[in-house]
Amino acid sequence: MNVFRFLCVLIFGLVHSYGAVIQNYDVEEIKERHRRSVSTDRRSVIRNISPEDRPSCPPGQSSPPNRINSTERLRNLRNEMRIIGIDAYIIPSEDAHQSEYTSPYDQRRKFICGLSGSAGYAIVTMTKAALWTDGRYFLQAEAEMDCNWILMRKGEKDVPSSTEWLTSVLEVKENATVGSYPFFLGSNSWTLYEEELSKNNIKMIKTNEDLVGKIWTTGRPPFPNSPINALPYKFSGRHWHEKIADMHVAMKERNADAMVVNGLDETAWLLNLRASDIPFTPVFFSYVIVDRRKNQTILYIKNHNIKLTSNPTDEATTQKLYEYLNTGTDGSCSGKPGYCVEVREYDPLPVTSKVSSVVEYSERVWISPICSYAFYSLIPKEKLLQENTPISIQKARKNPIERQGMIQSHVRDAVALISFISRLEKEVKAGIRWTELSAADELSKYRGKQKYNRGLSFESISSSGPHGAVIHYSPSNVTDKEITTDEVYLLDSGGQYLDGTTDTTRTFHFGTPTDFQKECYTRMLMGNIDLANVKFMKTSFGPYGRELDILARRHLWNSGLDYRHGTGHGVGMYLGVHEGPAGIGMNRKQPFNDYPIEEGQFFSDEPGYYEDGSFGVRVENVMEVKKVNLKYKFRDSVFLGFETITLVPVEPNLIKYEMLSGDQIDWLNTYHKKVQDTIGPLLINTNREAYDWMELRTRTITRAVSSGPRTFVSLLITFFSFTLYFVL
Amino acid sequence: MNVFRFLCVLIFGLVHSYGAVIQNYDVEEIKERHRRSVSTDRRSVIRNISPEDRPSCPPGQSSPPNRINSTERLRNLRNEMRIIGIDAYIIPSEDAHQSEYTSPYDQRRKFICGLSGSAGYAIVTMTKAALWTDGRYFLQAEAEMDCNWILMRKGEKDVPSSTEWLTSVLEVKENATVGSYPFFLGSNSWTLYEEELSKNNIKMIKTNEDLVGKIWTTGRPPFPNSPINALPYKFSGRHWHEKIADMHVAMKERNADAMVVNGLDETAWLLNLRASDIPFTPVFFSYVIVDRRKNQTILYIKNHNIKLTSNPTDEATTQKLYEYLNTGTDGSCSGKPGYCVEVREYDPLPVTSKVSSVVEYSERVWISPICSYAFYSLIPKEKLLQENTPISIQKARKNPIERQGMIQSHVRDAVALISFISRLEKEVKAGIRWTELSAADELSKYRGKQKYNRGLSFESISSSGPHGAVIHYSPSNVTDKEITTDEVYLLDSGGQYLDGTTDTTRTFHFGTPTDFQKECYTRMLMGNIDLANVKFMKTSFGPYGRELDILARRHLWNSGLDYRHGTGHGVGMYLGVHEGPAGIGMNRKQPFNDYPIEEGQFFSDEPGYYEDGSFGVRVENVMEVKKVNLKYKFRDSVFLGFETITLVPVEPNLIKYEMLSGDQIDWLNTYHKKVQDTIGPLLINTNREAYDWMELRTRTITRAVSSGPRTFVSLLITFFSFTLYFVL
Repeated sequence: MNVFRFLCVLIFGLVHSYGAVIQNYDVEEIKERHRRSVSTDRRSVIRNISPEDRPSCPPGQSSPPNRINSTERLRNLRNEMRIIGIDAYIIPSEDAHQSEYTSPYDQRRKFICGLSGSAGYAIVTMTKAALWTDGRYFLQAEAEMDCNWILMRKGEKDVPSSTEWLTSVLEVKENATVGSYPFFLGSNSWTLYEEELSKNNIKMIKTNEDLVGKIWTTGRPPFPNSPINALPYKFSGRHWHEKIADMHVAMKERNADAMVVNGLDETAWLLNLRASDIPFTPVFFSYVIVDRRKNQTILYIKNHNIKLTSNPTDEATTQKLYEYLNTGTDGSCSGKPGYCVEVREYDPLPVTSKVSSVVEYSERVWISPICSYAFYSLIPKEKLLQENTPISIQKARKNPIERQGMIQSHVRDAVALISFISRLEKEVKAGIRWTELSAADELSKYRGKQKYNRGLSFESISSSGPHGAVIHYSPSNVTDKEITTDEVYLLDSGGQYLDGTTDTTRTFHFGTPTDFQKECYTRMLMGNIDLANVKFMKTSFGPYGRELDILARRHLWNSGLDYRHGTGHGVGMYLGVHEGPAGIGMNRKQPFNDYPIEEGQFFSDEPGYYEDGSFGVRVENVMEVKKVNLKYKFRDSVFLGFETITLVPVEPNLIKYEMLSGDQIDWLNTYHKKVQDTIGPLLINTNREAYDWMELRTRTITRAVSSGPRTFVSLLITFFSFTLYFVL
Repeated sequence: MNVFRFLCVLIFGLVHSYGAVIQNYDVEEIKERHRRSVSTDRRSVIRNISPEDRPSCPPGQSSPPNRINSTERLRNLRNEMRIIGIDAYIIPSEDAHQSEYTSPYDQRRKFICGLSGSAGYAIVTMTKAALWTDGRYFLQAEAEMDCNWILMRKGEKDVPSSTEWLTSVLEVKENATVGSYPFFLGSNSWTLYEEELSKNNIKMIKTNEDLVGKIWTTGRPPFPNSPINALPYKFSGRHWHEKIADMHVAMKERNADAMVVNGLDETAWLLNLRASDIPFTPVFFSYVIVDRRKNQTILYIKNHNIKLTSNPTDEATTQKLYEYLNTGTDGSCSGKPGYCVEVREYDPLPVTSKVSSVVEYSERVWISPICSYAFYSLIPKEKLLQENTPISIQKARKNPIERQGMIQSHVRDAVALISFISRLEKEVKAGIRWTELSAADELSKYRGKQKYNRGLSFESISSSGPHGAVIHYSPSNVTDKEITTDEVYLLDSGGQYLDGTTDTTRTFHFGTPTDFQKECYTRMLMGNIDLANVKFMKTSFGPYGRELDILARRHLWNSGLDYRHGTGHGVGMYLGVHEGPAGIGMNRKQPFNDYPIEEGQFFSDEPGYYEDGSFGVRVENVMEVKKVNLKYKFRDSVFLGFETITLVPVEPNLIKYEMLSGDQIDWLNTYHKKVQDTIGPLLINTNREAYDWMELRTRTITRAVSSGPRTFVSLLITFFSFTLYFVL
């Protein structure tokens, strides 16, 4: 029912927002609700919302056509709930690793209620079923869910939080219980549910099984089982055994004896392994335990016996996984000298029992703030160190080889983008039919031809006209729209490469944009440039992403405009296109905006503007954080700045040059010179049309062009004086 | 020994930093130390610092000349410590209200160790005495303390924190105890001492008496006892009984039954009373308890019986304090209809016993984060609400009458400043001798002549040449320096008025500044203007001061320069020149930088640059936060901006106009037009010289002037073309 998607206009999250931290967002929401509930007894005032409040579910209607019938599924689920004796069951969107994108196997929440959108959680009681989602999915949820479901529109007036609702619907029962499978719910969310519900004597219960999984007996996609490959040293820049040694150092510094690694990009980075268990992110289902005291590292993977012996670890070698990890074919390390990773079967029970035994003899155990409650609950508070892991910190600060790879992969990605867009523009102008979908599909072929490409880093946002204002839009057969010379075309896409992950947005108008479109684009671009151009002193207290965001937002704010998303996210190296722990945005509820910007990190820079029902503009570049040398050196301080590594021309057709400052013009010229110097030689002999397209867009703009009426006058005078001079 | 002061170059705090939050800074420091101490056993590695490490205390030297001899004082203090059985005693700088400025009566830390600087705390054990202070006071402490004292230079390598030091010097003793008088130590500091020391079985002990006060038997200044005056409604804009009703509303919202008010500016604001118990801040020693459940408000003041009846509450009336507060002459409310404030004697014992009894029957008691441990410790955790009080929040958001007063008082203050500086400049240029001190003294006379003036709001920073680089500098007889045409002169000063508090900095060069001085001044000014000119959307998550700071700092950072202080502080209305809860700065350790900027607040905008040993430049204006109307209106958002209310010309002699952007030039022109329009009519007939001085400095600058080489060329061409035209 994607026809409704483009109508969703209330956007609260980041541009294709960090799924992994949605749980933190919820935590903040719960906290706020809590504050409110302290002041008034919310139970008596919360709105009693029922399925009949939904436009498509008037009284008598139970299952409008074309949607999943949840009646039997709910009946089965309630049966399971009855067996273990719980009164409500929480089904979040996340998998056991709190992943941003989930595999179809893990889409339990979609299975139970029908909503296919990425964000939302369901709660089922013995008589009611409710789904909470945000403004991006209001219309989609309305269209996809049958009438068993109450739709809770988060952020709307009087819509109760999940704890308020649970308190209200369960209050009649003594000693009510709410269950959830502790692998799927993050530790922060769980503890806040627990805290809130306990005030009304409602108890949170860990279920031993995934109840939705248990009833999902037919039509369930298989558990992902993609081959695992090693990432060669020439891409990773550090051997896995060196990384484990680094972990030991970092853990020693914080007196941590063990670390339980729950995030899939963390296990993949640590062991320099990649796979494709999850769409767009080259990871595999796994846990790692780093046990410093026993000098033991354990990797849990599915089908570990087969994986150890059946696949070479890399296309270019015949090395098997057990050879690569210096382990036995049975996964054990016995008799192995030097570094070795023990490999065991990915299965909740053995993992948790191992974690329990490690916790037993350890004094301090490190887990990430983004960690399932399953592990969190095994670690007593006095032994718990829950902070960004050294993996996440070191993963974000790329090493020199990774930095080189990020730069190189962006060069190849730019070649693909420029080649495709130059053709697209020419053909759209020539009247050849292109649509959002066909453009996205064709672009992915261009990317696929580039060296080291391993697919896309996220579903392309290829959006024409009003679709561009839907920040999370991606085209489907239902919504697909032609790209014309009459509307703005916004293209946000990226690739996975063995040596890097890319993420680029460019906005075009292949005809004549309106003055307002140009103004919005230019203000947005001014912010994009100001952020890219900032130099900042490294201090013990920052700066943090929150403190830089205003540079990107300021020029839109100056005229009363805004974009409702953050400005930049971290980018992985052949890993997640969204990567913590740092980000650039002003939403202090997002913890990644409150983390220092450090050398070697990579961020997107992507302010935008969205005019509902009309158009959207955004320019997104990836930038490297680098040391810079400046004119002066204040007390031997270190100054950092950004170096833009995305190398695609910025569309001149949408710029009002007279609005740009001299510094902004200078930045644009320097940037375009770099595009020309770097990408030019790669195109000039192979794709002359693309070269010319690029060359035309990267010519030096004179500062004079930017100076508006004043300089226009001086140009006139110059012209006049020269005329006079020669005529007379 | 102020001769050393100007050499202090390591500055960590804010410009004349918020004394009230120094305790929070210490808290953060303790936390950081704690993190470190977790990783290594610091006890074994901390540097063993003794008095002999001090340059002025070589072996054998005990008391160099010209300093307080602390031997007998320490002997007496240790006697007291022995009597109550404690092994160490902590003496902070603060008074019982954690005031920024303290009365001479409260300067215990100075009495015990000799250091007269504003920041630092002393700890005395049975055999050792140590003082911790920051870079501003290293040289001064060295010069003022005798050789009984160890000098702990905070921030220097291997200097132990106070808890590390206590742990190391007390570790030989079983069950060691550290005492402090709980009224002087803030709750945050105390609880962190407690937490840290308890790890080594050292116990914190509340002493029943101020031990230093007990031994300070001779030469102690009297307890302040200034008359209390009511602030008429035409200045306060809200009656005290309305404010108490407002408190009840705010307290009800957070389910608080009672509020214990500890801050002197909070009690003064709540009851619209002013006095002069503390230098520069028109407050009086007092506590207030707002008891919502009993509908009772109690004010504790010193000599309450005399004060109730002896003084009229305002120069213009004969109303007595008891009449004003609708209380009996005995301070009781019995038989009083309507609002009434009970008045009792200011004395620790009755106050604490009253707080205890209020806590007994209340479910929730509100105190400020800046509150003495004395009160904090009386409230059980489950009843404690420790957050910014509604007083501090409403005090910062001025009401319409207060806003008008702030604006008007800044107009009068500008008349005083312009009148004085125009004379100073003329006379310095004419060779008449002016010094830092004589200028500051004369300026205070100019202020004193202004309507409603009630003295200065802080000690003037009048600094010539290298003194300008000492951020907290204020001249004394020892340091006094002539103001000449050869050096930069920085003047940071402010006044207290019945209708407002002012704080203005201007920097001058009465001769020819160097190119570097001009560049620094211009970059600083560009930041000052950019911050003043920002428009920001009001959101549920900010913006906060931390997020705006970079606008002021950016242009200095662009060239590798910085200033080591925050950019802006809140300003009170005839109250503290530094006022919470919000501020503008990037130091996330300072909680006031992490608080929303809201309509009706007033902030200083004061970036600077300081070249050690050479000069300092700073421009400081006070700005009001106001709603603004912009070109567009994004989804009915509210946008805020700043309106500068300080109306003193910016010194053109130090500006490199070609560096300014068009927007910055426009701002400067608009600002100077406002100065001319507002201040001009007040000077033109009374002080023609000052008028001319102002007029010359507020003329419109053409944008062309700002455009540097490019426009210079176009001007040349213009000139050339006209010449050609007329000649030929």
